[in-house]
Amino acid sequence: MAPPSADLIPTAGNNCTGANDVTESAAPIGTPKLAELDPSKLKVTTTKTPRQFQADSSKIEWGKADVSTDHWITAKWSETAGWAAPELKPYGPIDLWPTASCLHYATECFEGMKAYRGFDGSLRIFRPTKNSARMLVSTNRIALPSFSPSALEELIKILLATDGPKWLPERGSFLYIRPTMIGTGGALGVHKPREAMLFIILGQFPVLYGKSLKLLASREDSIRAWPGGFGFAKVGANYGPSLMAQKEAQARGYDQILWLFDKSCQVTEAGASNFFVVWKNKDTGRIELVTAPLDDKVILDGVTRRSVLELAKDRLAVSNGEIQGLDVVERKYTMMDLIDAAKEDRLLEAFAAGTAFFIASVSKIHFRGEDISPKQTNGTYAGILRGWLKAIMFGEEPHEWAVVVPETGFEVDASAAEKEINEMAETLRRMKTNPAFAAALQKVQAEI
Amino acid sequence: MAPPSADLIPTAGNNCTGANDVTESAAPIGTPKLAELDPSKLKVTTTKTPRQFQADSSKIEWGKADVSTDHWITAKWSETAGWAAPELKPYGPIDLWPTASCLHYATECFEGMKAYRGFDGSLRIFRPTKNSARMLVSTNRIALPSFSPSALEELIKILLATDGPKWLPERGSFLYIRPTMIGTGGALGVHKPREAMLFIILGQFPVLYGKSLKLLASREDSIRAWPGGFGFAKVGANYGPSLMAQKEAQARGYDQILWLFDKSCQVTEAGASNFFVVWKNKDTGRIELVTAPLDDKVILDGVTRRSVLELAKDRLAVSNGEIQGLDVVERKYTMMDLIDAAKEDRLLEAFAAGTAFFIASVSKIHFRGEDISPKQTNGTYAGILRGWLKAIMFGEEPHEWAVVVPETGFEVDASAAEKEINEMAETLRRMKTNPAFAAALQKVQAEI
Repeated sequence: MAPPSADLIPTAGNNCTGANDVTESAAPIGTPKLAELDPSKLKVTTTKTPRQFQADSSKIEWGKADVSTDHWITAKWSETAGWAAPELKPYGPIDLWPTASCLHYATECFEGMKAYRGFDGSLRIFRPTKNSARMLVSTNRIALPSFSPSALEELIKILLATDGPKWLPERGSFLYIRPTMIGTGGALGVHKPREAMLFIILGQFPVLYGKSLKLLASREDSIRAWPGGFGFAKVGANYGPSLMAQKEAQARGYDQILWLFDKSCQVTEAGASNFFVVWKNKDTGRIELVTAPLDDKVILDGVTRRSVLELAKDRLAVSNGEIQGLDVVERKYTMMDLIDAAKEDRLLEAFAAGTAFFIASVSKIHFRGEDISPKQTNGTYAGILRGWLKAIMFGEEPHEWAVVVPETGFEVDASAAEKEINEMAETLRRMKTNPAFAAALQKVQAEI
Repeated sequence: MAPPSADLIPTAGNNCTGANDVTESAAPIGTPKLAELDPSKLKVTTTKTPRQFQADSSKIEWGKADVSTDHWITAKWSETAGWAAPELKPYGPIDLWPTASCLHYATECFEGMKAYRGFDGSLRIFRPTKNSARMLVSTNRIALPSFSPSALEELIKILLATDGPKWLPERGSFLYIRPTMIGTGGALGVHKPREAMLFIILGQFPVLYGKSLKLLASREDSIRAWPGGFGFAKVGANYGPSLMAQKEAQARGYDQILWLFDKSCQVTEAGASNFFVVWKNKDTGRIELVTAPLDDKVILDGVTRRSVLELAKDRLAVSNGEIQGLDVVERKYTMMDLIDAAKEDRLLEAFAAGTAFFIASVSKIHFRGEDISPKQTNGTYAGILRGWLKAIMFGEEPHEWAVVVPETGFEVDASAAEKEINEMAETLRRMKTNPAFAAALQKVQAEI
């Protein structure tokens, strides 16, 4: 038997949680240490064939065309080796075996973030540690590998540093960021993936108009999430099953589904966003900003949700000039509570809040044949919160939530021609090992 | 405006369901008819490089290696054209854009079936219409395209006809069949996939030993499915989120999770199989075969489940020699019902039933610190049902459930050498259009 090598680490001394402990760190003696996700190992290959930037943001076909930027970052993981060196490379397709875990068992999760071009010219990302930490919560929920959230954050910054200057030139505009992890491998079977891949892509996102949303309340036979499920995690499994309801809503002239839960019709989320109402409390008469709580893990711990709550607690608690102070309340509330408030003229506002569609006011909710509408005056709390958040995102208000990303850009590989010859020579060398090569070359060379 | 062409079909006369109808068939006037999934259009390319058949079934690395056969069938679908001609081709990787719907939103579903080599030498599949119909139920649940279930069944038969002779030579053995559909395309966004792909793969499956299962009851904070969810459909979203619980079970020495539902601890499924118990009814003293009902759509409508229920109703209703008759009952029942039955010596048997692991007796269930075990005599009902089903699957008992598939096999393309030269010439022709080709060739030819 070979002596233990330097990459074998004894862990018995650390394993204080007993034989049944199955955390990643409780490796038995002699298990080789798995490589961590390490941005310092990044291999960089810039593109030779740049993609087309769409300068007219009204022409960005989000949801219809592939609006990805020039590069993406990938990192492969395996059960036996851990994380391989990440790669920054020209955007392109993924090769997957038809047996890959993510194609059968939804072993996949993602994050949604944005990069903002500030009015001062700097590129910023908004509370990236929140997204990176949530990504780890999501991977843990579906048996995908762990990683250091700060390593993910670092990789996101590197990709933005590279593609930011070309793809986000205009002040006041933004790019969409999509970190994703998928279970890969070639072995079918319902088990923890033995291989996985992390990737980060960037995409142009259309400018959103200040259109207010009309929501269709979900039917009793269509539930987005449940206690003990995975509604709190950003896993693929929360989205596919929601599409039929969304399609029905759109066919009926609504923008999104308002997801209810339980026979009591608890209000949870709107589409893929968190949902807020502003009402006058029936008993106290005080104005409240209300959203569903996180404690039963049914709803997503949204970064925009969290930011709205924190800003409101911080800045809206007491009246200020024309703005009346309000109480911030995370509680369960039902469709019937909303209907009562609307009937009693206490329902002031409703809005959806999320990264992709930011803060969107809701003008109408349809529930069992009835329409309810918030009073929605011009100077809404949604508008105030939107303004504060925008000022932070675009650097008008200096704030720790907005993290500046230094940029480098990239040069289209200057030695492209030379490199191309070398690559083609490499291909020809491989082809030459095939006995058919000589005959094929003769054939082609004979064709003038 | 161009006049309507021959492929435009007026549908107004058929559209009797009103403006809000959003079924696939309610196309507005002038919408081109989308192509159906059509096995008669199949394009066939057999392999030049056959894969290795593993003759020793104890060496089949299910879940560890890619055990797929020589060929697979694929068919692409798009929102604008419908189903393209399906292809039978050498097994190989799928090219997907990193933005493909199935990698982010779990727009994916599958079926699990088996092909059986009968003791008479014929290849049979078991109740294929049930699986094909359920596949359509699954695609409908997650906004993937519709198709004719009989077309899917036909494609499965063609693939088996091709690979069956080589890959299923031994009488009494079986192959696993995995039809799959995934949302593809290149446009990110939470919406119904605009492109999709159906594929069918076959894989060698290890022989299962008659080992009885030990189950760990799921914890309150881990719920597989919910009414209004998608537990009844074979969608990816049911599997990924179950893996952490399964991993915990295995780390604690159990084979699978027994999934409970609700605070009342209703017993639903075992792992990815349906679950049955045989007990003596407390009040009547009669023997009952009990399984959870389908009506709240929380559990999978398993083909093995259905077959067990039908056979039991048909053949076990009245006592026959030493076999005591039993009542077949689909009802909700709880872990507490099981515990009571075990304590009162009324819990005779428990077993899991599904395609992959067939009918597996359960010897122990762990629930909140307590173990319960069925009495489990030698001549169990599970054993009787297993015997009957096997006799049907392997053709010992002629039965309409077992459908014989005529086989053709395939020949490794005899003109492989010639074809290879032509393909390589084709590659060289493409490379020749690149200005770098001449220099690269010179470089390689200079290398002796």
